[in-house]
Amino acid sequence: MSNQGNDMKRNHRELGQQLELFMSMEEAPGMPFFLPKGMVIRNQLENLWKEKHQKAGYQEIKTPIMMKQHLWEQSGHWDHYHENMYFSNIDEQNYAIKPMSCPGAVLLYNSKRRSYRELPIRYAELGLVHRHELSGSLNGLLRVRSFTQDDAHIFAREDQVKDEIKHVLELVDEIYSLFGFSYKVELSTRPEKYMGVLEKWNKAEASLQQVLEEKGIDYSLNEGDGAFYGPKIDFHILDSLGRSWQCGTIQLDFQFPEKFGCAYIGDDNKPQQPIMIHRAIYGSIERFMAILIEHFDGSFPLWLAPIQVSILPIAQAHIDYSYQVKAELEKVGFRVEVDDRNEKIGLKIREAEKQKVPFMMVVGQKEMENHSVALRKHKEGNLGDKSLDDAIHFLQSDM
Amino acid sequence: MSNQGNDMKRNHRELGQQLELFMSMEEAPGMPFFLPKGMVIRNQLENLWKEKHQKAGYQEIKTPIMMKQHLWEQSGHWDHYHENMYFSNIDEQNYAIKPMSCPGAVLLYNSKRRSYRELPIRYAELGLVHRHELSGSLNGLLRVRSFTQDDAHIFAREDQVKDEIKHVLELVDEIYSLFGFSYKVELSTRPEKYMGVLEKWNKAEASLQQVLEEKGIDYSLNEGDGAFYGPKIDFHILDSLGRSWQCGTIQLDFQFPEKFGCAYIGDDNKPQQPIMIHRAIYGSIERFMAILIEHFDGSFPLWLAPIQVSILPIAQAHIDYSYQVKAELEKVGFRVEVDDRNEKIGLKIREAEKQKVPFMMVVGQKEMENHSVALRKHKEGNLGDKSLDDAIHFLQSDM
Repeated sequence: MSNQGNDMKRNHRELGQQLELFMSMEEAPGMPFFLPKGMVIRNQLENLWKEKHQKAGYQEIKTPIMMKQHLWEQSGHWDHYHENMYFSNIDEQNYAIKPMSCPGAVLLYNSKRRSYRELPIRYAELGLVHRHELSGSLNGLLRVRSFTQDDAHIFAREDQVKDEIKHVLELVDEIYSLFGFSYKVELSTRPEKYMGVLEKWNKAEASLQQVLEEKGIDYSLNEGDGAFYGPKIDFHILDSLGRSWQCGTIQLDFQFPEKFGCAYIGDDNKPQQPIMIHRAIYGSIERFMAILIEHFDGSFPLWLAPIQVSILPIAQAHIDYSYQVKAELEKVGFRVEVDDRNEKIGLKIREAEKQKVPFMMVVGQKEMENHSVALRKHKEGNLGDKSLDDAIHFLQSDM
Repeated sequence: MSNQGNDMKRNHRELGQQLELFMSMEEAPGMPFFLPKGMVIRNQLENLWKEKHQKAGYQEIKTPIMMKQHLWEQSGHWDHYHENMYFSNIDEQNYAIKPMSCPGAVLLYNSKRRSYRELPIRYAELGLVHRHELSGSLNGLLRVRSFTQDDAHIFAREDQVKDEIKHVLELVDEIYSLFGFSYKVELSTRPEKYMGVLEKWNKAEASLQQVLEEKGIDYSLNEGDGAFYGPKIDFHILDSLGRSWQCGTIQLDFQFPEKFGCAYIGDDNKPQQPIMIHRAIYGSIERFMAILIEHFDGSFPLWLAPIQVSILPIAQAHIDYSYQVKAELEKVGFRVEVDDRNEKIGLKIREAEKQKVPFMMVVGQKEMENHSVALRKHKEGNLGDKSLDDAIHFLQSDM
């Protein structure tokens, strides 16, 4: 992650507090508490992810958040990563709280005999993981000790790898585009200290490069910066402040299948080893939310906003009608609140602006009589009187 | 939980394996692994829960799965429950992995000053909790060490308690009815060892009793069987084998708000203590799934079935058309698979029956020419040839 520029107005922790999205507490440093409005955003991100992955042929799984230590010794995490892991003890056996979800996915892959016909198998998991960070480095949702990785593990035959990479590239592009993000792509190749057979590395690197070129994607080459277990493609999001954030990744892995003896029966009836592809798109739901909060300066697009419409009655006499309007908006799926306090309309508008609610509907005597609303847009002001139906269509066309 | 009768054919572990819903592994005893088809059911249950709770005015939150030990000392869990809890250590401080979600909800309630106007606050959380069980007693999804509680904590004024209980009773009834469950209701009153003021107990018990009577709900009285912190109403589901399972619960709690100093500013401008209502409807997603699996004998209703329609081409020539049918069904939201293996149609039907897929669509030359399908229903057999449109309408009316 590179972090050029620093706009204090856009600190996601301050916005998170002001907009009541999340909290950090000393009872669990680095493990954020999600407030109701933050949960709406989180659920939107997770639902979007589930929908897109289901359509792309992924199967969702869920694996335990702690497993016996010997599994992590086998995976190599114990050797390479144990200072960043948390542990527990059950029945006098050590358990590790998972820092990543790969071993769980491999256990499911290995739980039955696989045939070449079944591949590729694409296991997707919104995995809650825990990794240690120094307490001084903790930062809201951006640097945390617990987070949800939008992980997937693809088990593929060698002849399927190129197509799988291509599909992931398309999915990354589809999802980032929904937020208006542009992004940079980086290909990282074999490091000096690598594991495995040189020939496999060369083949894999060539596949990645070919796919990027076939799809006409601009990328930069980071020679020697791949993981020890395989080459990778990283995605760096560019936010509205010109900063770049590494979020998505696609990593080829020849080592995990080797370590865990993953196999499938080939069309020659002989056991073969699949290639494993680790990939994430958001990276971490929490961190992606932090980036979104700063990118949009808290003014989320309509589909993502925790409250989409704030209805502002001018006087107490217009409260009943306000709740009628609310019910009609909710019927077509909008998230709505009514500011029914006995306050001046000017104050209500100012506060809805401060809460960065995308649309306001001011209602008074005239609106009540005409079954209409005075529509306002955040930052843009009055859009004029509209019949409630027209206002709903206007909002729907803004989604 | 009482457990009359034992039908081996309906063992949820065997069905879970046969239908590929979940697995238990020695790497994490008592912490189930959800396979893709089990995840479909789980997601259906969670989505249903979220939708119903949102409509009922709950706000979803998410709190960390581990918090510092001193919080659990304050809550009383350390004294009364620590043998059932798991622990970890971060920066030389003890953390407890949460066995329930109440302290997290209280921290959020307490995170700002509350006014009487804000109440009731209804925080809902699908909370991942861990509780120790002896390894010999572990049983599939029914008795586990990690599970997701469909928790909610309502902070209410005393004058709101009756209405809140009424709304929970309605929500329980609405959700259980969707599964065709009937249920028994039990009211448990002040135990010998109770905490708090007698007068509060009497008032609370009277409210619960009044609500049950006003709603005309039959209930049995368990005198002296309440929790030490307040009286409760429990819900016992009756399954298709005549067994009863305690799932839902509504518990009034005067102690937690006391221990954590929860307050709101009353209309007299003085601080008041809210009453806390703990409540769950499924109880545990995992255990509820185990009950559903046995209740339905794995033949899930159409809306809940992991695969809703299996398309069975008679010969290889009909595979293209099968995928066309699949695409049309998926367009209207059905979960569909095509059995495109080069096998006899009799075998394909037998296997789809064994997998308890609610509907099959057999397609051959005639169906391909007529844009139709031969519709079959699980256990009932052939429903005759139908145009694809008619078949879709038939399925939709079965939801």
